[in-house]
Amino acid sequence: MSHQFNIVGKPNRKVDALQKTSGQTLYAADLSLPRMLHCKILRSIHPHARIVAIDTSAAQALPGVIAVITGRDLPNKFGILPVSQDEESLAVEKVRYVGDPVAAVAAVDEETAQAALKHVQVEYEVLPPVMSIEEGLQPLDGREPIHAYADQENIHKLVALEFGEVEAGFAEADLIQEDVFLRGQHPLAAGRTRRAGPLRSQWQTDRLGSTQCPHYVHKAMAGVLDLPPSRIRIIAPPTGGGFGGKTDPFNHEMIVAKLAMLTGRPVKIVLTREEVFYAHRGRHPVLMRVKTGVKRRLDHGYALSVLLDGGGYVSYGVASTYYTGALQTVTYNLPAYKFDGARVFTNKPACGPKRGHGTPQPRFALEVQLDKMAGKLGLNPLDLRLKHLARPYTETANHLTVTTIGLGECLEAVAERSDFREKYGKLPFGKGLGLACGAYITGAGLPIYWNKMPHSGVQIKIDRGGGVTVFCGSTDIGQGSDSVLAYIVAEELGVTVNDIALVTADTDLAPVDLGSYSSRVTLMTGNAAIQAARKLRALLFETAARELMVPAESLAARDNVVFCLDDEARRIPFPELVKLAEAQHGTLGAVGSYTPPRRGGRYRGAGVGPTPAYTYSACVAAVEVDADTGEVRVEKIWIAHDVGRAINPLLVEGQVEGSVYMGLGEALMEEQVFRRGLHKIPSMLDYKSPTFLETPDIETILIETNDPEGPYGAKEAGQGPLLPVPPAIANAVYDAVGVRIDETPITPEKVFKALREKARGGEGRVGPKRVPHIIFPEPVQVESRWGQPAE
Amino acid sequence: MSHQFNIVGKPNRKVDALQKTSGQTLYAADLSLPRMLHCKILRSIHPHARIVAIDTSAAQALPGVIAVITGRDLPNKFGILPVSQDEESLAVEKVRYVGDPVAAVAAVDEETAQAALKHVQVEYEVLPPVMSIEEGLQPLDGREPIHAYADQENIHKLVALEFGEVEAGFAEADLIQEDVFLRGQHPLAAGRTRRAGPLRSQWQTDRLGSTQCPHYVHKAMAGVLDLPPSRIRIIAPPTGGGFGGKTDPFNHEMIVAKLAMLTGRPVKIVLTREEVFYAHRGRHPVLMRVKTGVKRRLDHGYALSVLLDGGGYVSYGVASTYYTGALQTVTYNLPAYKFDGARVFTNKPACGPKRGHGTPQPRFALEVQLDKMAGKLGLNPLDLRLKHLARPYTETANHLTVTTIGLGECLEAVAERSDFREKYGKLPFGKGLGLACGAYITGAGLPIYWNKMPHSGVQIKIDRGGGVTVFCGSTDIGQGSDSVLAYIVAEELGVTVNDIALVTADTDLAPVDLGSYSSRVTLMTGNAAIQAARKLRALLFETAARELMVPAESLAARDNVVFCLDDEARRIPFPELVKLAEAQHGTLGAVGSYTPPRRGGRYRGAGVGPTPAYTYSACVAAVEVDADTGEVRVEKIWIAHDVGRAINPLLVEGQVEGSVYMGLGEALMEEQVFRRGLHKIPSMLDYKSPTFLETPDIETILIETNDPEGPYGAKEAGQGPLLPVPPAIANAVYDAVGVRIDETPITPEKVFKALREKARGGEGRVGPKRVPHIIFPEPVQVESRWGQPAE
Repeated sequence: MSHQFNIVGKPNRKVDALQKTSGQTLYAADLSLPRMLHCKILRSIHPHARIVAIDTSAAQALPGVIAVITGRDLPNKFGILPVSQDEESLAVEKVRYVGDPVAAVAAVDEETAQAALKHVQVEYEVLPPVMSIEEGLQPLDGREPIHAYADQENIHKLVALEFGEVEAGFAEADLIQEDVFLRGQHPLAAGRTRRAGPLRSQWQTDRLGSTQCPHYVHKAMAGVLDLPPSRIRIIAPPTGGGFGGKTDPFNHEMIVAKLAMLTGRPVKIVLTREEVFYAHRGRHPVLMRVKTGVKRRLDHGYALSVLLDGGGYVSYGVASTYYTGALQTVTYNLPAYKFDGARVFTNKPACGPKRGHGTPQPRFALEVQLDKMAGKLGLNPLDLRLKHLARPYTETANHLTVTTIGLGECLEAVAERSDFREKYGKLPFGKGLGLACGAYITGAGLPIYWNKMPHSGVQIKIDRGGGVTVFCGSTDIGQGSDSVLAYIVAEELGVTVNDIALVTADTDLAPVDLGSYSSRVTLMTGNAAIQAARKLRALLFETAARELMVPAESLAARDNVVFCLDDEARRIPFPELVKLAEAQHGTLGAVGSYTPPRRGGRYRGAGVGPTPAYTYSACVAAVEVDADTGEVRVEKIWIAHDVGRAINPLLVEGQVEGSVYMGLGEALMEEQVFRRGLHKIPSMLDYKSPTFLETPDIETILIETNDPEGPYGAKEAGQGPLLPVPPAIANAVYDAVGVRIDETPITPEKVFKALREKARGGEGRVGPKRVPHIIFPEPVQVESRWGQPAE
Repeated sequence: MSHQFNIVGKPNRKVDALQKTSGQTLYAADLSLPRMLHCKILRSIHPHARIVAIDTSAAQALPGVIAVITGRDLPNKFGILPVSQDEESLAVEKVRYVGDPVAAVAAVDEETAQAALKHVQVEYEVLPPVMSIEEGLQPLDGREPIHAYADQENIHKLVALEFGEVEAGFAEADLIQEDVFLRGQHPLAAGRTRRAGPLRSQWQTDRLGSTQCPHYVHKAMAGVLDLPPSRIRIIAPPTGGGFGGKTDPFNHEMIVAKLAMLTGRPVKIVLTREEVFYAHRGRHPVLMRVKTGVKRRLDHGYALSVLLDGGGYVSYGVASTYYTGALQTVTYNLPAYKFDGARVFTNKPACGPKRGHGTPQPRFALEVQLDKMAGKLGLNPLDLRLKHLARPYTETANHLTVTTIGLGECLEAVAERSDFREKYGKLPFGKGLGLACGAYITGAGLPIYWNKMPHSGVQIKIDRGGGVTVFCGSTDIGQGSDSVLAYIVAEELGVTVNDIALVTADTDLAPVDLGSYSSRVTLMTGNAAIQAARKLRALLFETAARELMVPAESLAARDNVVFCLDDEARRIPFPELVKLAEAQHGTLGAVGSYTPPRRGGRYRGAGVGPTPAYTYSACVAAVEVDADTGEVRVEKIWIAHDVGRAINPLLVEGQVEGSVYMGLGEALMEEQVFRRGLHKIPSMLDYKSPTFLETPDIETILIETNDPEGPYGAKEAGQGPLLPVPPAIANAVYDAVGVRIDETPITPEKVFKALREKARGGEGRVGPKRVPHIIFPEPVQVESRWGQPAE
């Protein structure tokens, strides 16, 4: 049916567009319940300290205060990964960053709760903090580690893998390039504050909160509260953006749940913007050393060493460490690949998964390094990349199975639109073009929990009035996943989008979908929805065939009519058909589910990287650099993205443009600076991110490769397009003024400094000089699967 | 599995008990939404009038008034039955009772809306009203009929049926008894006011209202608003009682929906108690002539003529007319039966289905007449009834298929407990015992709409956390239908009731269940739930059998554990099993549905009366009558009810006691008196219904006949037990003081009058003297099926 879609592929309106644009959407902070209490959290003022004593009696005695809790009330730890159960809802013995929750108050209003915090007496024994990767690598020499369980002192996680013979590759290479890069720290500055609540305190009633993954919160909360999951219901109300930062279960969610249980009343918390800068999951700052050898058509050996600044807790940190290495192999031919990674605990908020999760940092390093190598080889950067493209339907060195690859088309498209081949290297001083690529997963091949079980489930009910209700545990965090579900079911059943009612993000009502992370939703819920819808379509077509006296195979459905393809006059309206079908088959309901194919290698960490389908992006950035001030102005971004199939091109373009915008901010201005554990600028007034004025014209080209695993061929669009943007800008800066800024953000100060250094005869580079010495374990040697045909 | 229930048959707590008893249940009137408007309705002050003109401009101009509508804004008529589409949301051309809605206002608060009503100018042309059955039967002589479409002038509906040879039966009878009875008018004085709203005005969003039948409101509203049903969602919030009075779609529901569409804002209406006395569906007052012939063991011919006072609109009136005749045949052997019925339009609020729907009135007549005949035959009333009991698994004269009959056990039980055989006729003057029986349906065999389609649908989803969610369109109106669904699914799956989450009374989320009327819910949703649950149990047991390496047939489930019956140590906890089963089968969801067997005869009106199963009740009332004042005090009620199977005996007893209470009120005090179309006492302060002080000790005996069509054998309990109460009390009054009060309510005035009349040598009877002459059509002659074995 790929040749004649009715809804798929068209720029349909989002199902929640009217509510959102008319201000009628109720976000968690808008919700209110009778007898609701308000919660405020007392947070640590020290980056690293031992809790000697907490006295809550004065706070408890305040009129209007209903309950005060500390860590002793919530002793069970939690975390997002099975191996990461290191977070406490409220710190029990020690605090690990400024902002770590220590006590919580439920009171009749926010002001009373806030006032009560001042009456909680906490006695701390201050410990020396660890505030950077470098400090985290220093020997402890008797100092207390941040956590007791790390792989090595304050080094949380050490990974060393080698696929094939990397040194042998280097030995044969014509050119070897080695560089050091830094991607700096920045938080997740989504426009909306995080919030949880209100919580209805009845056993087995509703907790509401802003989360990307209600089912993971469900599981974590059952553990924290010592309740069977059947007694807990998580509802995620509409969320104004997630970007990875709302993937983890959070301590404030556990806190309000516990307070609601204790008080028997709903409890609501709305974090302030300042709190969000602490209680968040930003992108890991990563210091990287990259070494690449090239010989004729093939990269001959590639080695990547990375050091991640993990902050005070694990979050997704184990996965983040592996991810930082995993996806380097899927864009270009890399027969041999060596990856060393170390994640360091520091006394800052935990870093976790931000858009692109672990992959934008090494992608920056790889794409800037390739640009440097192209220069040395005298090749146009476009040609260097085109020559070395990975081949579709093969495996990579690290055993990732790649199916469709639209990267070549992406490169050709952005190059043609930007006239890259003609203009690169030939623009006047101060103007430049830069090219870079990226790749990302469409959902993780392995689940975080619940191995071998469906990643997405969909249940559909058809009402005899003609309405269709779709139940799915997925969470629309603004990306449009509700809309995509509606388009797909409407397409399959031949109804209009307006006939679809959606029930999502509710653990009681909807089957499990793992959540809105890893760009998994369209592919996984889409496949589950197609399966469920086709079961119902079969029942409907069976009835229609009987009524119209034609074979079921000759039937199609469109615009609320089922008709015979050979004779469109033989037709039956959908609402009439569902009545006949219900009379024949009974209540019309069906389930569908999706479990991704089991791919990936047989080595430790192989679970991070395999996906049903990889997406590819290519980006050209045109910049203008003011050599007098170092200011970089991005004039235009051309971006092409291989989305497999655009189920709604308008939504895909929105995702691509959003990714470009975020990449632009990370490239040029976003930076989180700490001073003795305190954020220097925990406010949106001071924190820099691009405004409308700094956002250039963006030209988006969608490439459709029709992936066999995607619903109608669709792959992801929400994260991948971010990846090429920062390196494309860095490369464009070089093309414009001849300096290399090998760390983000590329601030005017850095550009100005590099220009001045170059004018004085220097290298004209700003970036880390070296990666601190660290003894990685002997790498696990794994046979390279590079070039093997995909099963 | 009937021999070893885990949950069924036990006095489990209601699923909503904690919320209700702790005041946390939010009824419709408790709900509030942002930007919500408040609606007030201007109602006719005339019982019968033509609307000449309406001017809403002054009301519209008031500050705070957002919209004013009249009948021209809602031209489409509606009604509950397909043949009854005579109601207007707002009167267009004429009004037919005091209270008929004429205009409606939506304003920013209730006070403004109320104030605006005074500014709506309505010019009426007053028409002569029809205020009683007698007036309704008078020839029009040029007067305007209330409706133009009635069968004959103001006679809405005329029915005349004869099954077998009634006159031939009378000719052979040893005794013929002929009486005239009146069951007076009373409204539905449920404790809670009716309300609808708030309505979310977005297309395809939520309307909330207090209704017994959300799916019928859904259908009716689609017609009134000219919208496809898929764009309308009806949610019935918890309802504090229905009793039939919330079965119809109501005009105030249409009005708030239209106002919400016009204003783009939610609109709420809460009717005042006075309004509820007008905008309600009370029980039809029925004037009855009953003639019974008896010969030895069998009733030889039975003729019933009834005149119903229908009020101004149809409501369920066509069905009510047939019902008034239909169920007279299922308790005793009646080889030949003749029924004449006429429903008269009057200028009062429409009468409709109140607990027992049409059947308590003729049951009163039959049971009191039998008492009189027993006296004449010198038989104990118990023996007369026992001799003439209908036989199980046979057909009746009017083609009703009766399966299980527990009436004999019911009679024996109440007689034994009350010592009826010994004490009847032998108590001192002023004390008396009375006996009566009743029978009722367990759901209607034919639907109101949607012929041949399921009457109930259930969809179940099992979460991998172990929670089970049950979706069903049924409406818990206090009777406990949500609880019964939970018990049944928990029984089938072997989980605890706390593991069940319920989603009911929501047209978007739940499959259609026709609604909480006709005592249909336990049987029909119960069967649908069993079907759906057993599909899932089969999947779970298949997985468990594989895991435990035992045959699936050897497995059972209880208390969240699936185990092998032969070896209980072979077991697997339910939450663990669902994960394994989901891994094996995909998302665990299933549907079930129930369509009743098609029974009933092939004559017009045969659709009213057939049911999957009839219930039976017997009642003994002990009264004390104060001969000086005529006051009747009921000392005790013994009631036995054949419920088939008590899924929760505590809930069944609650239903039985509630029925007794309502029957007590109808027997002794409830009466709705009109004066020129106005209620004399439209307030709960003045309107008499029993308080705790007037409610006697009630002894309930449950008889379980295990009906083959019921879920685990269950039949209804919510309506049938009302039926024998009023005649038992009337018969007890006769036993106490020797007077016959042949009309309800049996007030002290009537008893006193009868005693005085008797003292003066009269008959000692108060009641209608005659039934007005009315020419019924020749009865449709139908062959009697009496005594035929059930198919």
